[in-house]
Amino acid sequence: MITAIDGGICSAKGFKANGTHCGIRRNRSKRDIALVVSEVPASAAAVYTQNLVKGAPLTVTKKNIENGIARAIICNSGNANTCNANGIEIAEQMCGLVEKHTGISASDVVVASTGVIGQPLDITPIAEGMGELAGGISADGDKAAAEAIMTTDTKLKQVAVKFSAGGVECRIGGMAKGSGMIHPNMATMLVFVTTDAAISPEALQCALSTDVRDSFNMVSVDGDTSTNDMCVILANGLAGNARIEKPEGADYEEFCEALAAVTRGLCRMIAADGEGATKLLECHVSGAADKQTARVAAKSVICSTLFKAAMFGADANWGRVLCAIGYGGAQVDVGKIDVDFRSAAGELAVCRAGAGIEFSEETAKKVLSESEIEILVGLNSGSESAVAWGCDLTYDYVKINGDYRT
Amino acid sequence: MITAIDGGICSAKGFKANGTHCGIRRNRSKRDIALVVSEVPASAAAVYTQNLVKGAPLTVTKKNIENGIARAIICNSGNANTCNANGIEIAEQMCGLVEKHTGISASDVVVASTGVIGQPLDITPIAEGMGELAGGISADGDKAAAEAIMTTDTKLKQVAVKFSAGGVECRIGGMAKGSGMIHPNMATMLVFVTTDAAISPEALQCALSTDVRDSFNMVSVDGDTSTNDMCVILANGLAGNARIEKPEGADYEEFCEALAAVTRGLCRMIAADGEGATKLLECHVSGAADKQTARVAAKSVICSTLFKAAMFGADANWGRVLCAIGYGGAQVDVGKIDVDFRSAAGELAVCRAGAGIEFSEETAKKVLSESEIEILVGLNSGSESAVAWGCDLTYDYVKINGDYRT
Repeated sequence: MITAIDGGICSAKGFKANGTHCGIRRNRSKRDIALVVSEVPASAAAVYTQNLVKGAPLTVTKKNIENGIARAIICNSGNANTCNANGIEIAEQMCGLVEKHTGISASDVVVASTGVIGQPLDITPIAEGMGELAGGISADGDKAAAEAIMTTDTKLKQVAVKFSAGGVECRIGGMAKGSGMIHPNMATMLVFVTTDAAISPEALQCALSTDVRDSFNMVSVDGDTSTNDMCVILANGLAGNARIEKPEGADYEEFCEALAAVTRGLCRMIAADGEGATKLLECHVSGAADKQTARVAAKSVICSTLFKAAMFGADANWGRVLCAIGYGGAQVDVGKIDVDFRSAAGELAVCRAGAGIEFSEETAKKVLSESEIEILVGLNSGSESAVAWGCDLTYDYVKINGDYRT
Repeated sequence: MITAIDGGICSAKGFKANGTHCGIRRNRSKRDIALVVSEVPASAAAVYTQNLVKGAPLTVTKKNIENGIARAIICNSGNANTCNANGIEIAEQMCGLVEKHTGISASDVVVASTGVIGQPLDITPIAEGMGELAGGISADGDKAAAEAIMTTDTKLKQVAVKFSAGGVECRIGGMAKGSGMIHPNMATMLVFVTTDAAISPEALQCALSTDVRDSFNMVSVDGDTSTNDMCVILANGLAGNARIEKPEGADYEEFCEALAAVTRGLCRMIAADGEGATKLLECHVSGAADKQTARVAAKSVICSTLFKAAMFGADANWGRVLCAIGYGGAQVDVGKIDVDFRSAAGELAVCRAGAGIEFSEETAKKVLSESEIEILVGLNSGSESAVAWGCDLTYDYVKINGDYRT
């Protein structure tokens, strides 16, 4: 059984965190650097952006967790440390500063950055602020850390659950930053997850890689795949369960389900807090001949700028749903497609067998004026399904991104 | 030699046109139906949307020009006649009405529709208005026809050129409607081209299919591939040149160049008049190892919503150019990429060898505040190049599409 609990990155035993303002951002009231530390070495697994342009921190993190072990995460916001001549050097210096102030080897540090691309990242404020950051880590530091990784996010994003592995209670918690440049491919824009479950690096990597296909890879805010996407999970084993060695068996399945509860929760938060968003869109595709068809169709719908704009205007323009499925690349029989809209205000059928049916525009307005909208697509060609998460396209998205750098 | 001339769909000898208001649209001052007629049967070629959801008119047009011959084009705006149970029947009735009022066989008619998807198209106003429409066709009807196919377009789009084939002067002219749902794939949202050059249907199809790869397929307004995209060309031979039979030789090459002048002109117009657009974006990618790499990179840049929003704000956020190239799918060496911005106000280097260089923000603002912006990307890995056209993402795009149907 998986139970939601309050908390985030510090919910699992033995994890402490902190987030402070060190000066990367000019606004002194905005925390800009986060540190997460495990009492003991942890199994580590990660997935990264598929963008050919990769942030320097990704290169350093990959190297540091190659042995499947890590103990700390350092992450700044305000600067992506990407497309800079000295990016790798700066990322390594960040790890070195963690070692200096915590005693954890620099090679056991996960390093991440988010913010503007192509502006040199000055190490000075990080060096000067690391003492305060490391000195202040605590088991209550989850919120400070989650705040420190936010950029244009308007809401703090953390989720935690408890579950049982072999009769032993374990916990998984995570934090994320999302907002813009969100269209992950095998990873997302900074998600950090911790657990006290004992699990091998290999099983952990398998669980994470499998999970992201139906979690973070099914989220899109704007179709732009970031250069710095990264999802990292640390498992320190302090729960005391019999270590899960292989990606199989009841405990592994339970672990995957608990992980899914955390990642789906973060997906919904990332999509709902997309830049400028006023609505969370959740597209459920069912009746697909195969899983990939369901995924491609669901994602194409929540990626359509025209459909996203229609949802902002609470306009039941279902033709744009069919249009998006039609160009998405999935092989579907258009003449079999059903479409419904659903929200807290009710459910409305708008299309049957690929053609429009009469519906009340008044009811449509009511259903689509809620803050969470489900788009239900029935392909009527099989039994596979998928869910994708997105948000509406609004004036504020344009405003936020029309002048992001200043 | 190819010379631009005033005009459009009636510039070639023997083509007449008209556009009227028949009542598909409620606004009586907006023309909503266009007719183009050739004095004699013409070679016909076309490319269509790759969307699996296809408008009914496309099915009927495909059938009618299967023999390579057509004599008329009928096109309405205000309703796409797509995802309707009786769509094919209505499209055939439209061709029948052309036959009734012009004597041209229904099977020689190209039929097209643009507007809302999924609302039944009533034939009544078309039947009632066809007499006036057909009765008023003239060699001066190009503008009326070009107006009648507009939806959210704010500007009439027509281009014409003259050229010489075997010493005989020929003309090519075209009209287009663009604006939203523009991300063509082997075709675009309604482009009609006429020429008086004598050319076989086979050579004409080859010329058109080759051309769209570097013209309409390189335009994107919003990443949404329409269900009704169609580009049709009619060649009636009335110029009297020696008929171009095969896709080869000097006359064929000259024809292709003249066609390119018309289609590129229409591409720029479609992109500049994208829904809500304030700026035309033209991305030139050079130094690519192969043509397809250049195309993919150029199109990825002009498709990035983040970059489009930055251009709206005149923000020189070149990191988003690199980011878009990185996720676009082209295999490039990121460490070799140069980026410059250019406009009537000057040129500005912002990135060299994949890393940012210092530049004046004041100059950047000036360069990017013009209405036509060129993004120059040097891949420094070969000698192939490509151009893609797009526009900025603005508040008005969201406004227009937040409530398109009412």
